[in-house]
Amino acid sequence: MPYRAPVADYRFVLEHVAGFPQVAATERFAEATPDVVAAMLTEAGRICEEVLAPLQRSGDTEPTRLENGVVRLSPGFAEAYRAVGEGGFLGVSGPVEHGGLGLPISIATALNEMMSGACLASHLSPLMAQGQIEALDHHAPEWIKELYIPRLASGEWTATMNLTEPQAGSDVGALTTRAEPADDGTYRITGQKIYISGGDNDFAENVSHLVLARLPDAPPGTKGISLFLVPKRLPREDGTPGAQNALRVVGLEHKLGLHASATCVMSYEGATGWLIGEPNKGMRCMFTMMNNARLGVGMQGIGVAEGAYQHALAFALERRQGRTPVEGGSGAIVEHADVRRMLATMKADLFAARAIAVACAVAIDMETATEDPAWAARAALLTPIAKAFGTDTGLKLADTGIQIHGGMGVIEETGAAQYWRDVRVTTIYEGTNGIQAMDLVGRKMADGGDAAQALIDEVEAEAEAARARLPDLAGPLWQAAETLREATEAIVATTDPTERFAGSVPYLRGFARVLGAHYHLRAALAEGGAGPRTALAQVYVRRLLPEHAGLLAEARAGGADLYALSDEDLAA
Amino acid sequence: MPYRAPVADYRFVLEHVAGFPQVAATERFAEATPDVVAAMLTEAGRICEEVLAPLQRSGDTEPTRLENGVVRLSPGFAEAYRAVGEGGFLGVSGPVEHGGLGLPISIATALNEMMSGACLASHLSPLMAQGQIEALDHHAPEWIKELYIPRLASGEWTATMNLTEPQAGSDVGALTTRAEPADDGTYRITGQKIYISGGDNDFAENVSHLVLARLPDAPPGTKGISLFLVPKRLPREDGTPGAQNALRVVGLEHKLGLHASATCVMSYEGATGWLIGEPNKGMRCMFTMMNNARLGVGMQGIGVAEGAYQHALAFALERRQGRTPVEGGSGAIVEHADVRRMLATMKADLFAARAIAVACAVAIDMETATEDPAWAARAALLTPIAKAFGTDTGLKLADTGIQIHGGMGVIEETGAAQYWRDVRVTTIYEGTNGIQAMDLVGRKMADGGDAAQALIDEVEAEAEAARARLPDLAGPLWQAAETLREATEAIVATTDPTERFAGSVPYLRGFARVLGAHYHLRAALAEGGAGPRTALAQVYVRRLLPEHAGLLAEARAGGADLYALSDEDLAA
Repeated sequence: MPYRAPVADYRFVLEHVAGFPQVAATERFAEATPDVVAAMLTEAGRICEEVLAPLQRSGDTEPTRLENGVVRLSPGFAEAYRAVGEGGFLGVSGPVEHGGLGLPISIATALNEMMSGACLASHLSPLMAQGQIEALDHHAPEWIKELYIPRLASGEWTATMNLTEPQAGSDVGALTTRAEPADDGTYRITGQKIYISGGDNDFAENVSHLVLARLPDAPPGTKGISLFLVPKRLPREDGTPGAQNALRVVGLEHKLGLHASATCVMSYEGATGWLIGEPNKGMRCMFTMMNNARLGVGMQGIGVAEGAYQHALAFALERRQGRTPVEGGSGAIVEHADVRRMLATMKADLFAARAIAVACAVAIDMETATEDPAWAARAALLTPIAKAFGTDTGLKLADTGIQIHGGMGVIEETGAAQYWRDVRVTTIYEGTNGIQAMDLVGRKMADGGDAAQALIDEVEAEAEAARARLPDLAGPLWQAAETLREATEAIVATTDPTERFAGSVPYLRGFARVLGAHYHLRAALAEGGAGPRTALAQVYVRRLLPEHAGLLAEARAGGADLYALSDEDLAA
Repeated sequence: MPYRAPVADYRFVLEHVAGFPQVAATERFAEATPDVVAAMLTEAGRICEEVLAPLQRSGDTEPTRLENGVVRLSPGFAEAYRAVGEGGFLGVSGPVEHGGLGLPISIATALNEMMSGACLASHLSPLMAQGQIEALDHHAPEWIKELYIPRLASGEWTATMNLTEPQAGSDVGALTTRAEPADDGTYRITGQKIYISGGDNDFAENVSHLVLARLPDAPPGTKGISLFLVPKRLPREDGTPGAQNALRVVGLEHKLGLHASATCVMSYEGATGWLIGEPNKGMRCMFTMMNNARLGVGMQGIGVAEGAYQHALAFALERRQGRTPVEGGSGAIVEHADVRRMLATMKADLFAARAIAVACAVAIDMETATEDPAWAARAALLTPIAKAFGTDTGLKLADTGIQIHGGMGVIEETGAAQYWRDVRVTTIYEGTNGIQAMDLVGRKMADGGDAAQALIDEVEAEAEAARARLPDLAGPLWQAAETLREATEAIVATTDPTERFAGSVPYLRGFARVLGAHYHLRAALAEGGAGPRTALAQVYVRRLLPEHAGLLAEARAGGADLYALSDEDLAA
């Protein structure tokens, strides 16, 4: 079934659910008029449907390979990268003065979902380019911006992000890659990095690596990490790529999914690099890139959720098995109650995840446009939720998509299983969803829970206002928001971080469940309280929102029961 | 990490949780003394650990192939099949007079889990042999029993089950394979069957296919289906395999997992077969095999849950990342609260699924031994729950196992992803878990819910009796059982099947959640209310039991909200 980009739903979510008109009303984003947004989404949707979606299956069966040290991309992926570069996807939010389009992150977010839904494996390198452009724009000296950003935005050069080492995954502070200062102001980078997406390719003129490393005598842990720009080929005076730098791909990982994306083991062997930002402040610079990337990975999950949903629905609309209960209907399995339950809850979950993510993007844009710390706090709060809930939703919907296919779901040729394999890593990379949850109950509640409570206030106020009109939706939502408020208070009152962390994942999931109902209510109100969006909101509130109670109860369960089991008990 | 068969846990569950002493006290199973059971489990565990577990990874990377019409098994799998035959796994519950061991299904159930946990791909053919032995024992004429059962039990011959056709999956009644009577009392079978596990192999003397087909002028639907025994090679007078029958493997499916198991497309081209049971009563005969197989597939899920749990725990006990909160501990990630939460809830879920499945097996054995209809009703009630919850649990734990591995979880060499790929089909085959749930709220509640309420009575009575001693466990359990009782009453009161089916899957899951707490309470009581089993029960009651509320609320949500969305709304 061909992928259809959800352009109409994005326009609705931006306009009526996630608060984009506020963004468009700012001076900073005055150019993001409804017409510009519509044109951008429509054209991007076309590229996703026509150029990326056809690569979904072939990229799986014709994986990227390493040949004599050169990464050979799956057929068509070089052309796809060029198309997204020419389409403005890479520099969509990048600085206008260096070749970017200067549009809101909200728009980039929509594009990221569509690229991922069409072909997730084609989205990893674009996401790295977007993030690197943002990091360089914030932290690099002017000559680097001028040299790199236009080339990254056009797609002539590609980008990577190098954090992980075998002993340093979630614990980035354990990394050991070294950076020695040279006489000319550059650095010599030496070490091994793993899980480097798009570490090399056979089409771009250059690959620009951002690498975390330690200066001599740097303090231990994350406070002794610096960020370096290390190009594959050293640019000449005129900016054209010159000599090969002292770095190479020493292997590709053999992965469950994303076969068209090269996951590289990189070796830096005294490679020349330039310091980005201040010495020992590399984590802060990298976080500019990572926050963007976290929302981007959330969109990967949501994109796959959309793709898997469309794929399963198309099957369910065609496949006939047994007599269905719909008189005069098509007789296809979509009419069976349990299949319909699966599809309707998929669609309801998908909408919730998308709305949360776009609301996060809107908050980021409002922070950029207004520098209001309240928007910054909102963006910071929503980022881990958008990442974790978006990717959890992608995984869940891909799984349900297989189930709807029955036996055909596990036959690779149908493509249902590929969505599931491809999306699996998204709950892990850019910080596992467990790390996201720790971030939510830790750093993001260091304000005493103010940002969370401010959002809950909004949820309750809107539910209260809608109570007379849509009691079936507003009543349960208000009650759930109260439960979330109490859980939030309980978490903030918990001073022992281990006790907080023991409930962090269910807390994040419960928070997302409540927010999802909040945005569904807005959608229902926007269509006047009757129609398909209201019907979908009913499905969400009746079938998915109730999960919040068990989740938020577990969020408050503390950690004593976990540690009452010894390691030996767990192994018994 | 090497697989360890959970022999000690099985002995505990059989003895203290699932009611096996009742089985051993019957005349029919008098030989299943504690010593015999212990010896059988220990020896079976040894074979699983030493013979099957080493094939887990190699079977994935060296798939079974079709060469010139011959299925070539993955290396080692022929020897493995012989070992399980010699170990008595195939005929463990088969008739003693034909070479079986005549032991309870409860023991077979334990063996099925261990085989699946060691190497799921090695378990598909053994499960087919067990089921075919049972079906022939119940329905075949004596000469067929004498000829086939000993050879199936020893592993000299293998067995398959042929239901599915491209247009007839869940809707078995749509099958079109034909059976024409011949002059000699045999039949000529013609048609194509798909998804035939172990449809051929390169080591067994013969393959015995049970095939569903239609006699001429058979009524339409499931009432016109008959069952035939169709051997690959036609046995000679002396029982040795003679001429090749008119059947062949025309293709193997390219599957997500279980690469060492041949999933065949079979072509029957006027093949000679023998009618098993009465004409047009084939579904009843096949159900003898299928009920057994459904519990067996549940055990596949639970086996993978155990394997994935052990694999993830071993990783978490070794891997070091970041400072952990346990003073004087190992510093491994198992000490982080969220990792410990994942592991502890995995173990709690695993115990619940295992206890439910063994309780189902005990009910089957009691039905066999006593012919008491109350036991038959209990077995019938628990079978779909054991199948669906066992496989849901396998899938969930394999997923959590990947998550615990972080980035390494999606690297195929670690093996974490394989559990997840391999187990995926178990929620689909032998009746999807949606079909199981429809069976539960449909056929299994045709008694007005009596069997369900009788079980809920037991749950509440035991919770009530334990309330003073273990209030933290018994109180929530009693309350949850009440909620289950109300949901059950509501479902029975719902006369429209579509309304029932709309809530069937969450109802089954909610039922399983309550039963899991019931068996956890028994385990806690058996150790005197303090110790690791009590601690695990606390984890279950605090973190997993609360899910029942949302599930049982959805179970009662009816179907109107689902049909309020049109097909066009779903596609919008």
